[in-house]
Amino acid sequence: MKRILDYCRKVNDMIIPLIEDLLSQCPEPLASASKYLILAGGKRLRPTLLLLAVRVSGGDVEKAIPAAVSIELLHNFTLIHDDVMDRDEMRRGVPTVHKIWGEPMAILAGDYLFSKAYEALLKLVENGIDYGSVVEATRVLTWAASTVAEGQSFDIEFQERDEVDEREYIELVWRKTAALFIASLKIGGIVSKASSETISLLEEYGYNMGIAFQIYDDILGVIADEKKLGKPLYSDIREGKKTIIVIHALSKANAEDREILLSALGKRDATIRELASAVEVLRRTGSIDYARRKATYYAKNAISKLNKIKSHDEEALEMLRELALFVVEREF
Amino acid sequence: MKRILDYCRKVNDMIIPLIEDLLSQCPEPLASASKYLILAGGKRLRPTLLLLAVRVSGGDVEKAIPAAVSIELLHNFTLIHDDVMDRDEMRRGVPTVHKIWGEPMAILAGDYLFSKAYEALLKLVENGIDYGSVVEATRVLTWAASTVAEGQSFDIEFQERDEVDEREYIELVWRKTAALFIASLKIGGIVSKASSETISLLEEYGYNMGIAFQIYDDILGVIADEKKLGKPLYSDIREGKKTIIVIHALSKANAEDREILLSALGKRDATIRELASAVEVLRRTGSIDYARRKATYYAKNAISKLNKIKSHDEEALEMLRELALFVVEREF
Repeated sequence: MKRILDYCRKVNDMIIPLIEDLLSQCPEPLASASKYLILAGGKRLRPTLLLLAVRVSGGDVEKAIPAAVSIELLHNFTLIHDDVMDRDEMRRGVPTVHKIWGEPMAILAGDYLFSKAYEALLKLVENGIDYGSVVEATRVLTWAASTVAEGQSFDIEFQERDEVDEREYIELVWRKTAALFIASLKIGGIVSKASSETISLLEEYGYNMGIAFQIYDDILGVIADEKKLGKPLYSDIREGKKTIIVIHALSKANAEDREILLSALGKRDATIRELASAVEVLRRTGSIDYARRKATYYAKNAISKLNKIKSHDEEALEMLRELALFVVEREF
Repeated sequence: MKRILDYCRKVNDMIIPLIEDLLSQCPEPLASASKYLILAGGKRLRPTLLLLAVRVSGGDVEKAIPAAVSIELLHNFTLIHDDVMDRDEMRRGVPTVHKIWGEPMAILAGDYLFSKAYEALLKLVENGIDYGSVVEATRVLTWAASTVAEGQSFDIEFQERDEVDEREYIELVWRKTAALFIASLKIGGIVSKASSETISLLEEYGYNMGIAFQIYDDILGVIADEKKLGKPLYSDIREGKKTIIVIHALSKANAEDREILLSALGKRDATIRELASAVEVLRRTGSIDYARRKATYYAKNAISKLNKIKSHDEEALEMLRELALFVVEREF
């Protein structure tokens, strides 16, 4: 596991100079507001996935760095806007962009990162990637951006509903979370001229790994060490998010427990006591354990896809396996 | 003048089917929220500019329609987000997106249109435009998106300052408004394989025409028929916008008038009486007339650039001339 985390740090060091460069040309406070969240940290999972897909496909990691930058910029754009939409106040252990610069500047910083994601991707041309592959990669980035927006739209809509089933949850999370993993892997394959078979296996790995990641994220939201998590525990409950844990609990709880859970769900000013009672319901119904099993199921599915990929870079494949395990064992 | 307005309507009819198609594949309420403003109206100046640039450059209008759609989607994305940032409640005679669906869905609808602008542009490939030109067009769209964000950042920053000079104003408006005109014209040229000389003249036309458009927009904000304008008069004053009229008035007014103007500027709950007194100051200082002269100056500059373009489509060139005059004579 140490190896993949070391590689994530190495990827961080590869992408930061170009990110600094892309975001330093604009006037203040836009420059600071758009750089801030990226520089506050992050695991760099998506650029790491992209560059591992390049390695698996026998491509040139150096040339693909602008694409890795692109996907990290797109990811941070979605986080900044999500935090505005959800009125979240902390992320990565620091106040969110809108808490510091206000909502208008946060919306703008997100928009700016969105455009800079494309600017970064188009730098592939200068790195000698052919026009056709750049267009294909741009298509995938665009697909990811609109798919994530669709997922976020489900998320908002589900918050207002009492009943959401697990199938709908999966529809939400593959869009909201897995799409960006899928795009990272596909773009890595495309710029490396991988076979369509390899690209589609990478895609299936990303789909399963992304869902595993989100389910585990839901779990961390109720069990993590708040300091390591970098944001308040239980905010999913306060916001009325229909996580897989909540969906399972609502379907299994007795009338009394259901009442306790529903009364805390979506209650912005719920007390710690009310939240703790709701989490007790999640435990009593076995819903946290259920989510753990589901996350592990998807992570194993992801790994099984990798096993079908033929690559000369066994180490890269091994790190992708480690990554799938990491996402369901991490503490943050 | 009638001819160019007829052509704008024709362009509207050319782009709407593809827009409907692109925005109908997503779940509700995202589909409605993202379509709403576009279908509420709009002059379609930017797609018209793009397709006229295609004609001037001897390109194929039919093939370029996805690019025209792209620029209109990008434009509407910026309007939706601007309205959230400025807390504007009316646009095109109807309530703004966030007034109907709330801010989270409005932010999301904007993001969605942003991504769909790229999806539309990439459809040029299916229309037989070569990869190199598509990449170049994507680069220009991306430049426009980040430049508009930079302009909007100036706008927010200037609202908080008492002193802004005319040079800074021009720096703001070319980014915030002209950049999208420039991008429309350049993309039209690029997909038609226009010479670099033609593209750079189109660019200069767009720069001047865009500035003329924004100055005249500032004028309409204080003199228009509110019904035709589709949004409340004087909102620029309420929001403390440093329009060229305000900048001129602040530099010319005596101490008493300056006081009247500054006391209304940025006062969200200013009474009609206070606003009317502020507008009286704008008149007394000759600032509205000054802005008119400036708008005309830029419009004429724009036309002078056109006169240097060699084209087989004299009608298209003539309509671009009419458009430059229209923007400084319109009522909405």
